[in-house]
Amino acid sequence: MTPLVSTAVELPDTWAYGPGVLHGGWLLETVTAAAMEHTGHPHPLAVSGHFLAGPKIGPAELDVEPLREGRSVSSLRARLAQGGRPKLEVLVTAGTLPSAGSAPWLVDAAPPALPLPEHCVRNAVALDGARNGISEQLEVRLDPATAGWTTGRPGGSSEVAGWIRPADGRPIDPLLLITLADALPPVSFDLGIAGWVPTLELTVHLRCLPAQGWMRVVQRTRLVQGGWLDEECEIWDSTGQLVAQARQLAGYREPAA
Amino acid sequence: MTPLVSTAVELPDTWAYGPGVLHGGWLLETVTAAAMEHTGHPHPLAVSGHFLAGPKIGPAELDVEPLREGRSVSSLRARLAQGGRPKLEVLVTAGTLPSAGSAPWLVDAAPPALPLPEHCVRNAVALDGARNGISEQLEVRLDPATAGWTTGRPGGSSEVAGWIRPADGRPIDPLLLITLADALPPVSFDLGIAGWVPTLELTVHLRCLPAQGWMRVVQRTRLVQGGWLDEECEIWDSTGQLVAQARQLAGYREPAA
Repeated sequence: MTPLVSTAVELPDTWAYGPGVLHGGWLLETVTAAAMEHTGHPHPLAVSGHFLAGPKIGPAELDVEPLREGRSVSSLRARLAQGGRPKLEVLVTAGTLPSAGSAPWLVDAAPPALPLPEHCVRNAVALDGARNGISEQLEVRLDPATAGWTTGRPGGSSEVAGWIRPADGRPIDPLLLITLADALPPVSFDLGIAGWVPTLELTVHLRCLPAQGWMRVVQRTRLVQGGWLDEECEIWDSTGQLVAQARQLAGYREPAA
Repeated sequence: MTPLVSTAVELPDTWAYGPGVLHGGWLLETVTAAAMEHTGHPHPLAVSGHFLAGPKIGPAELDVEPLREGRSVSSLRARLAQGGRPKLEVLVTAGTLPSAGSAPWLVDAAPPALPLPEHCVRNAVALDGARNGISEQLEVRLDPATAGWTTGRPGGSSEVAGWIRPADGRPIDPLLLITLADALPPVSFDLGIAGWVPTLELTVHLRCLPAQGWMRVVQRTRLVQGGWLDEECEIWDSTGQLVAQARQLAGYREPAA
């Protein structure tokens, strides 16, 4: 076994939702950032997180185990635990991303067509009126076509799309993209499925260094069945470059028929 | 730390390709199967593998660490190593899949339209004429529209699709679906990019217990850039049910301009 580096950390309430639910994308970014301190490669390329249980605001343990440091890529594993119980288990493969502005060899996809941000719906809504760390930290502007649920009229879209940028002008880097890959409201809301959609697994593939500005983000589901739904996410930067792709498997509760 | 269970295993050449490259999907299935022996839940739901280095045919070590055994799901991590060096690091979340024939709440996708298997192209081709464990273990019938490369005329499709079933009549279960999620030839071949496409990361989401018979499998790429490409995979069973979704990040070498 390779050596394990253990660090005591404090989970702040900055990204907390309502009664203290910590944002899954931000947790995955936080653990990935800790892992990245133990490799010579500059960027995360692929990050997989399995969410075991919801961590609480407060003290936590963060373990990182470097697995292999290669010439072009390295891999590490990392664990967020509280009181010795694992809460989030993460694998990170790191390397060097293409520069912003570099040319793709092939792109067979297009950014979502969105109304201008000022014609979109501000995502300040929180279930039951609680606070929402995401809408405090990020400016999120939802495509009205996928945001009927914000006014109590779910449109039945299996997609949610919108613009996102940091509220505080923080530069957008590959680590922040991990948070953005889970920052839109769940697709289930516009399908008329209310309630929490806990992430079971989230993998993010980083594809290119992002240009700054508004990011266009889209999440889609293909299959909602038996208590589980997928959410596929694409993040496009302000120049129209696909900078991240993600997919998560999450739980939902079927509404009574 | 939870207890680690270490087992000595032997990697056979059954799924080897050419000079001894072991098939990535099969490796992920093998490690997942070992992890599944340490949970009370019957099926893998989400499996993430980070491929560190190519293991060789022969003796290997397989470590499994149960992380959390919950009421509805459990999570485990597992590692395939040789000579103490990690080769494949895996996270598994297990639970209970919907039964074959159960009704989706929503499905927003369709199986690929394919000619009948007898009108498809048999995938017996191996680079440089070497043997190919995949085409020995599986019957793979490629859609001719995405198989121009098999006759030296790549069609430029960013998709490869076809029928797959076990050659030996082995029942198709969720574990085998993990292998099938990486069993089609790389999408890069029909794009005119020859050469090996090593998997960096592969996550498979299992969605439903499969009906038996021919599986329809499709892999697509959205972005080929800077040495990395994504391959998204869907597996549809013989009744038209989406039974697995996967995405991998893999390497390629750009052809000289």
